[in-house]
Amino acid sequence: MTEYIPPATRFVDLPDGFAMKRGGSLYGARIGYETFGQPNAARDNAVLLLTGLSPDAHAAAHPDDTTPGWWEAMLGPGKPIDTDRWHVICVNPLGSCKGSTGPASVDPGTGEPYRLTFPDLSIEDIADAAAWTVRALGFDELACVIGASMGGMSALALLARHPGLARHHINISGAVHSLPFSIAVRSLQREAIRSDPRWNRGRYDEESYPRQGMAVARKLGMMTYRSAREWDVRFGRARLRPEPHRQGPAFGPEFEVESYLERHAQRFLRRFDPNSYLYLSRCIDWFDLAGACGKPDSDAGGPGPAGEAVAVDAEAALARLDLARALVIGVQTDILFPLHQQRQIAEGLYAGGTDVQFLPLDCDEGHDAFLVDTDRFGPPVAKFLWAL
Amino acid sequence: MTEYIPPATRFVDLPDGFAMKRGGSLYGARIGYETFGQPNAARDNAVLLLTGLSPDAHAAAHPDDTTPGWWEAMLGPGKPIDTDRWHVICVNPLGSCKGSTGPASVDPGTGEPYRLTFPDLSIEDIADAAAWTVRALGFDELACVIGASMGGMSALALLARHPGLARHHINISGAVHSLPFSIAVRSLQREAIRSDPRWNRGRYDEESYPRQGMAVARKLGMMTYRSAREWDVRFGRARLRPEPHRQGPAFGPEFEVESYLERHAQRFLRRFDPNSYLYLSRCIDWFDLAGACGKPDSDAGGPGPAGEAVAVDAEAALARLDLARALVIGVQTDILFPLHQQRQIAEGLYAGGTDVQFLPLDCDEGHDAFLVDTDRFGPPVAKFLWAL
Repeated sequence: MTEYIPPATRFVDLPDGFAMKRGGSLYGARIGYETFGQPNAARDNAVLLLTGLSPDAHAAAHPDDTTPGWWEAMLGPGKPIDTDRWHVICVNPLGSCKGSTGPASVDPGTGEPYRLTFPDLSIEDIADAAAWTVRALGFDELACVIGASMGGMSALALLARHPGLARHHINISGAVHSLPFSIAVRSLQREAIRSDPRWNRGRYDEESYPRQGMAVARKLGMMTYRSAREWDVRFGRARLRPEPHRQGPAFGPEFEVESYLERHAQRFLRRFDPNSYLYLSRCIDWFDLAGACGKPDSDAGGPGPAGEAVAVDAEAALARLDLARALVIGVQTDILFPLHQQRQIAEGLYAGGTDVQFLPLDCDEGHDAFLVDTDRFGPPVAKFLWAL
Repeated sequence: MTEYIPPATRFVDLPDGFAMKRGGSLYGARIGYETFGQPNAARDNAVLLLTGLSPDAHAAAHPDDTTPGWWEAMLGPGKPIDTDRWHVICVNPLGSCKGSTGPASVDPGTGEPYRLTFPDLSIEDIADAAAWTVRALGFDELACVIGASMGGMSALALLARHPGLARHHINISGAVHSLPFSIAVRSLQREAIRSDPRWNRGRYDEESYPRQGMAVARKLGMMTYRSAREWDVRFGRARLRPEPHRQGPAFGPEFEVESYLERHAQRFLRRFDPNSYLYLSRCIDWFDLAGACGKPDSDAGGPGPAGEAVAVDAEAALARLDLARALVIGVQTDILFPLHQQRQIAEGLYAGGTDVQFLPLDCDEGHDAFLVDTDRFGPPVAKFLWAL
């Protein structure tokens, strides 16, 4: 499924026997990444960028791939994440289909795609694989780790499990765990995919792709990534065709908001592997920072025999993180990772002695605001990085 | 599909040739209703109750059917809607499958169920059919019309199209029209049903019912009827089984919130006709009070030749309603009919000279709060009715 991988994505091999948190190991696995800007002589200017569920590693244009990336407005020379100063490493999450090993990859043990034989995936595995990648690229310490959405969870897991790897952190629209409304949203997205007959318990192919299930999942995603307030202004009750006209039995799209969702869904189809979507979606539900304290890099804390540490609550887990400074940003219209979850991160870090700035933003664009509202996100991110 | 109809529901025949707003006419159609309490000698104590999308006419227990109804806590002797004083008529909406004629009913012209040959359904048709029912039962004037959710829309349409039928009104979690987020929710619910192969363009039967599509539609409904805040408290991250355990490939429910949604979905299946759901859902999207001013009972205003009046905006349409007193209630956690829509109703009625009380309630239960939070809804409803 190489069509998902951006052309300039490079790869780091994970060590054979890479142990997954919930059991199982990977052999011959790799992590896809791209870099932006140059390392300095001291090699102390590396910034790790951890993504949400769907992005690839091509966050912005660079000399090897000049097409715009998914965070083009934020990342580049002279931009808020200024690649004239920083050497940014953007990692495609383990379990994705856009460069890193995941359910669509070939299992070297069988020569067939993993599909549902891929081991259970955890945010902690994504964090461990990213940490491995950073070290494999020759960096023992990051100037900053930045994570947004699911990447905000991955960043917290990385900080918990790899103390000392980063002492500065920007967390955008992240959370220490998922709450029931967002669990319900993702559960229903997965149900839409699983109940598409073409999903076929994961054994679809290019000719028989679960289009309908993926379309519903994507539409439900868009509905929770944005906000009602944005759509009131953007679409109102605008229609595709003048009223009245006999609709007939099709019950098809009539309002512009329906057409907008349909366009986004169609654009998503065949650009994401459905099994990979299921694995990544579920690991967001499972994640709980209180259980992420098993630190592969030290003897402190650590998981119980079954791999789950439940001895500390999320607040205590945040307070344990060894950070000097952090910027935590949330958006008031976010219904997926609501603002009180970013306040919780900021308060927990503060309780642990981190110099924290908590920035609630009044954007209309909900959970996705960081992708579009550069006017509001750019200056505080630039200022935080400038002062490091 | 008589299994949908409560045992004590009675019927009023609509006149043959009952004209539908968007075209087409009904022959041999009927409206299902139940009554609670007795008419007084002056016949001036009738209260009309208009329901949301899914309820039947059995709002509460009465001598002919002592099983509890869907608004049991609010309606009955000594309750907020006190049937010792009021004669309450609850009408099942036209287009439903729970007593009134709808897509599951037999078309007398063919002897077969209408299915998708049922004419386009509008909120205005539901209002006109309810007004006909009230008059057929011998009431020229209602003491009050009460509508919640879709019923709040139906009530506004009835007041616009049948001036003089009621001069007191309680509107609960209603709206003058649908906004794009709620249109998107309903559009996706309809897509889930339509894309279920068993829907078969409306030609399912008992043996081949679109269970999966209806389940997804109902779950998405529950997610928007309630609130994230309620679920944070009610479910948190509680699991069905202790963690960790190998989940395997099924991706089935693991969190209590998923099990709750599954139980509600299963309970809904085969208790609602899918085509009826599609028709009712779409008429909520279409409704705009600005277009409902065509008054069958007078020459004032009226629709244009194509059946849509667009000359007035919603605020002006509200101001035109000839009401003496109104109570408008909304809920701060409602994401489907958000609170600013109830404020809009109250402000529009006030601008037209109605004595309005606007009551924003801080319930956790979102759009469905009126069904469960009797402590908050009961007293103001009782007080409003007591003072009539």
